Amino acid sequence: MPKWVKEIGPESDIAISSRIRMARNIESMPFPNDLNEAQSKNILEMVHHTITNANSSFKKEFELIEMNRQDKIERLNYIEKHLISPALAQNTTGGAALINKEETISIMVNEEDHIRIQCLLPGLQLTECLDLGNKIDDLLEESIRYSFDENLGYLTSCPTNVGTGVRASVMLHLPALSLTGYINGVFNVASKIGLAVRGIYGEGSQYTGNIYQISNQITLGPPEEELVSTLHDVTMQIIQNERAVREHLLASKNIELSDRVFRAYGILKSARLLTSTEAMQLISDLRLGVNLNLIQDVSIEKINELMVTIQPGYLQKYFNSDLSGIERDIKRAQLVRETL
Amino acid sequence: MPKWVKEIGPESDIAISSRIRMARNIESMPFPNDLNEAQSKNILEMVHHTITNANSSFKKEFELIEMNRQDKIERLNYIEKHLISPALAQNTTGGAALINKEETISIMVNEEDHIRIQCLLPGLQLTECLDLGNKIDDLLEESIRYSFDENLGYLTSCPTNVGTGVRASVMLHLPALSLTGYINGVFNVASKIGLAVRGIYGEGSQYTGNIYQISNQITLGPPEEELVSTLHDVTMQIIQNERAVREHLLASKNIELSDRVFRAYGILKSARLLTSTEAMQLISDLRLGVNLNLIQDVSIEKINELMVTIQPGYLQKYFNSDLSGIERDIKRAQLVRETL
Repeated sequence: MPKWVKEIGPESDIAISSRIRMARNIESMPFPNDLNEAQSKNILEMVHHTITNANSSFKKEFELIEMNRQDKIERLNYIEKHLISPALAQNTTGGAALINKEETISIMVNEEDHIRIQCLLPGLQLTECLDLGNKIDDLLEESIRYSFDENLGYLTSCPTNVGTGVRASVMLHLPALSLTGYINGVFNVASKIGLAVRGIYGEGSQYTGNIYQISNQITLGPPEEELVSTLHDVTMQIIQNERAVREHLLASKNIELSDRVFRAYGILKSARLLTSTEAMQLISDLRLGVNLNLIQDVSIEKINELMVTIQPGYLQKYFNSDLSGIERDIKRAQLVRETL
Repeated sequence: MPKWVKEIGPESDIAISSRIRMARNIESMPFPNDLNEAQSKNILEMVHHTITNANSSFKKEFELIEMNRQDKIERLNYIEKHLISPALAQNTTGGAALINKEETISIMVNEEDHIRIQCLLPGLQLTECLDLGNKIDDLLEESIRYSFDENLGYLTSCPTNVGTGVRASVMLHLPALSLTGYINGVFNVASKIGLAVRGIYGEGSQYTGNIYQISNQITLGPPEEELVSTLHDVTMQIIQNERAVREHLLASKNIELSDRVFRAYGILKSARLLTSTEAMQLISDLRLGVNLNLIQDVSIEKINELMVTIQPGYLQKYFNSDLSGIERDIKRAQLVRETL
């Protein structure tokens, strides 16, 4: 399990994980859309060679995951652990990722850009993610020449990433703001200051389990440190709002809230059929109960684990078979019961 | 707790209890509607004296419960245990019941008729109830002269009871017939052969928790033994239908059924708020799970107990206070958790 699942970080009552992603491309190479297989391979070899021969302690920690050597279920599982993007999983000709042991760093190769460095840490740790990303970025730059324009910055396959090439995001659990509808205020403010709010699996995904991914939209203009610190500050404000609404609910609707979280816990421990949507909703209620100290015998780490293990890819990997929808619902319920 | 709660009887996977009620009136006394207080007292004394002085082992077992000496909550609790009728509970001038220790016999005095002998046993035991009722009837007749017409039979306050004065009923748990909608067939057949189907608290009450009370409507005509044996036979047919549908569901929808009964069990063990309607529905699912051997650590006796203890009267008696609706929902959930 990745570090963001196994460990908790700062503000972990609300912030599940922080992520930095840097888009980089190699000079005088066509963007991935126009690459032939040989060129793709060449790029992967360059990146792989640079990492494994780097003069850094990092080098021993990385494992090469080539998409064409992973079956559908394994690729899905990497997506569910947030280690690769759905786009990379689909590129089975040249797509690959170099992932470190802790699963905090994933260098995706031949995704939308040649290189996408992704750093992922538990809790609210955007600056730490950026520092980690910069280290990898420097390491790669020792032997790779990036496509870079003095006026524009890093050049990328999609123009929206041109500039710093940096996207920062935080994954937040906001059940109280969701329950009360105040979440719409968060959406409004975020869009006004150029932040996007998305579901747990990025663009177009649902807000399952009251989990929201908040990320910067602007890469051209402010330097990456400013961008990261803006997102950090806005996130801290959202976290404080969520905490205030939780306290208010705890004071004014204590019994209804207890009923909700204990029922969720009871159903998770006893259901024989669970869809992933229902499971995520119940896990959200359980997480809230744990964070409000109403439920004391479940850890946040265990809840993070559940969030990943109930997903179709993990389930099929764990039970070692290609499962139909109803079979997954049965196995999901079984796994949840065993975990709790 | 009454015997029908504490013990199980024949066909107890479906039949919760059996009941016989005999309506009797005393010769040359006006019907209860037209009685003055002195006459009511006089009747109660006659009945009480007859029982306590009877040449029978019964006599030591009876306790006199006068409605004017019971508070609202205690009267409600007797109704919930099915020991008195709502009509008797309202008669706080002359209403009373003589109830035996086992709570299988309740002789209601000054209800709609002067005397209503009620016998209540666990499971399907209509004949046993009738035998018990006849014993009490004979005992009373030793010193009381009933209003009796050679052509019509026993005369009663309401003409629908004239004749044998006997109402027989069974309380059945029919979750499978309800779930599948086949219960409508039971309604049709029952009405064609002069049986009434009602909810757990008699006329006008809802079919809460998939519990149905089936009773004879005809008291004028066939002798009481025939009436009881007809009801017994029809009940056995309904029981066989319910069992067949349960087996069918178990075979064809095993996982959905397991999911339903285990969720019910999980919610009952964890909820912090339970309305009586929801509790009855969940208890119904739990009972089905126990009877199908899906759930093994709960007894039917415990489920019967829950059916009574979650009722408003019992709850208020147990927690020794007059509770509001929401307070009852909280205490009900607490009591259910403690019981399970």
